Amino acid sequence: MKAVVFKNQDKGCEYIEDFELPEGNTDWKEVNLYTAALNKRDDFILKGLYPGIKNDIVLGSDGAGYCDDQKVLINPGLNWGTNEAFQSEDFYILGMPGHGTFSEKIRVPSSNIRSIPPHLSMEEAAALPLAGLTAYRAVFTKGDLQAGQQVLITGGGGGVALNCIQFSLAAEAEVFCTTGSTEKAEKLEAMGVRQVVNYKKENWGKMLKSEAGLFDLIVDGAGGEGLARLIGLLKPGGKLVIYGGTTGKSNNISPQLIFWRQLHIMGTSMGSIGDFQNMLHFVKAHQIKPIVDSVFDLKDFHKAFERIRSGDHFGKIVLRVRG
Amino acid sequence: MKAVVFKNQDKGCEYIEDFELPEGNTDWKEVNLYTAALNKRDDFILKGLYPGIKNDIVLGSDGAGYCDDQKVLINPGLNWGTNEAFQSEDFYILGMPGHGTFSEKIRVPSSNIRSIPPHLSMEEAAALPLAGLTAYRAVFTKGDLQAGQQVLITGGGGGVALNCIQFSLAAEAEVFCTTGSTEKAEKLEAMGVRQVVNYKKENWGKMLKSEAGLFDLIVDGAGGEGLARLIGLLKPGGKLVIYGGTTGKSNNISPQLIFWRQLHIMGTSMGSIGDFQNMLHFVKAHQIKPIVDSVFDLKDFHKAFERIRSGDHFGKIVLRVRG
Repeated sequence: MKAVVFKNQDKGCEYIEDFELPEGNTDWKEVNLYTAALNKRDDFILKGLYPGIKNDIVLGSDGAGYCDDQKVLINPGLNWGTNEAFQSEDFYILGMPGHGTFSEKIRVPSSNIRSIPPHLSMEEAAALPLAGLTAYRAVFTKGDLQAGQQVLITGGGGGVALNCIQFSLAAEAEVFCTTGSTEKAEKLEAMGVRQVVNYKKENWGKMLKSEAGLFDLIVDGAGGEGLARLIGLLKPGGKLVIYGGTTGKSNNISPQLIFWRQLHIMGTSMGSIGDFQNMLHFVKAHQIKPIVDSVFDLKDFHKAFERIRSGDHFGKIVLRVRG
Repeated sequence: MKAVVFKNQDKGCEYIEDFELPEGNTDWKEVNLYTAALNKRDDFILKGLYPGIKNDIVLGSDGAGYCDDQKVLINPGLNWGTNEAFQSEDFYILGMPGHGTFSEKIRVPSSNIRSIPPHLSMEEAAALPLAGLTAYRAVFTKGDLQAGQQVLITGGGGGVALNCIQFSLAAEAEVFCTTGSTEKAEKLEAMGVRQVVNYKKENWGKMLKSEAGLFDLIVDGAGGEGLARLIGLLKPGGKLVIYGGTTGKSNNISPQLIFWRQLHIMGTSMGSIGDFQNMLHFVKAHQIKPIVDSVFDLKDFHKAFERIRSGDHFGKIVLRVRG
């Protein structure tokens, strides 16, 4: 079958026409994939910036297709375990170290296979799982966002951030956003974001404060030097949910602000089977369509990687696996 | 009446024989104080390191005495408000900006006055309120400590830390501790702390890790450069509760650790009326006696301040207000 396979750190990944998927676990089910989607982790793997990298693995965490004549999408997290608070030691994500979705077939536990909400196309379905799951857990399971609250989502062009924005708007929160691009700012405002500020401007924090005051919830995937300023933008009792740290470690963090304002800073990553189920219900109930930036054929995977590296994308980058 | 009054930032505080307590709010009740206790905030006020300092205010947040022939102690937090998650904007602590407990009388709202658990002396009763309230909210309301869990309490000689240790031991947790003094380490081990490490040794983190592994809960009042290492000592799903930041801002904080381990970092300060009530029930149920380091007469208040500045104290420093 056709697949995009991570060969090794030197060669990177290759498009292979006749990759043979190992038999794997006999009580798993086979899904005929039609679409897949990229995540930053795929690129981190190519750059050697991901833990536990193995050679000769089909890349890709997000996928949609058919299983038993049903349109299905796949929860990319395996072996979460029984504790809602955190994943077990055996937890892993499809596409490293287990075979992923950039191929015509995949085998996964049946509990990872879910029907596609009927309002979604195959492209939109593949764009949803990883980012939607991460966003749902960040905004609701951890952030407990309520209607009317003020929420700030940083880096509003990425897949997780866009899902956070869509979910927060659907929950009738007042949504604010940071981005590095004027073009993206216009798109975000058109979606219903109340204020978008450019984080490349020195005074982005002040601009937010003068329009919004302080925030009930901030969802951040960047970390780094921005984190101290984000903490200063939280209301008493406010929550900062961290799902990523693309700009590295954070300095100048004030314990005084944290204790006197009774702040909660919470880490989140992926989500439980319950989170995934709740996310799908929410997407269906609110008829939310994940934003697809672009679609490439599987064999043109390198163009998809170029696009994700450019940082110019707005929404998910999808691969057409067959058809 | 006799009182220790903060005059102003130049003069510091003075012992006054004939201080006249203003009438104040008519629906407040008068307490005849017998004992009071020092907190670090009293010394911070003298050093000008506290927000909202006013002149000619009786110092002191902790006190015990008689009201309507009942032995009572006082909840030092006023106007918490209706939200359990955080204090209202009108919240303040006795002893700045309102008159405090270093005097023969005080007037406070009746809801701040509680019966002394019968197993406590007047000295122990004065040693309990501020530190006990802070510790209870840190360990239980925020930290949700369960029997059998591993908890690390930093700086195990201070009032809040000692109450955290006593409460955690009573809750049948496995308690670990850091301290800067060999003498204090011996006392902490005698209390039932499983391991005490000296934070002045470079490898304190490794020493804890080799004995305890990782922690379910860490309670910290120091902040500063130690915080990054504390975060690294948390189990997946672990909690860090911060009630102070005596060593300043924190650097080198890893977002990756926070999100991948699904950590919760929570600030806490003082506590609600409900927290205070729950703390008193817990202290009574477990017959906990706060540790009193030393007792001074009110007029010898400067000796009490010398003692708290020395850092040599183990437990609370109490003032005998009358008798």
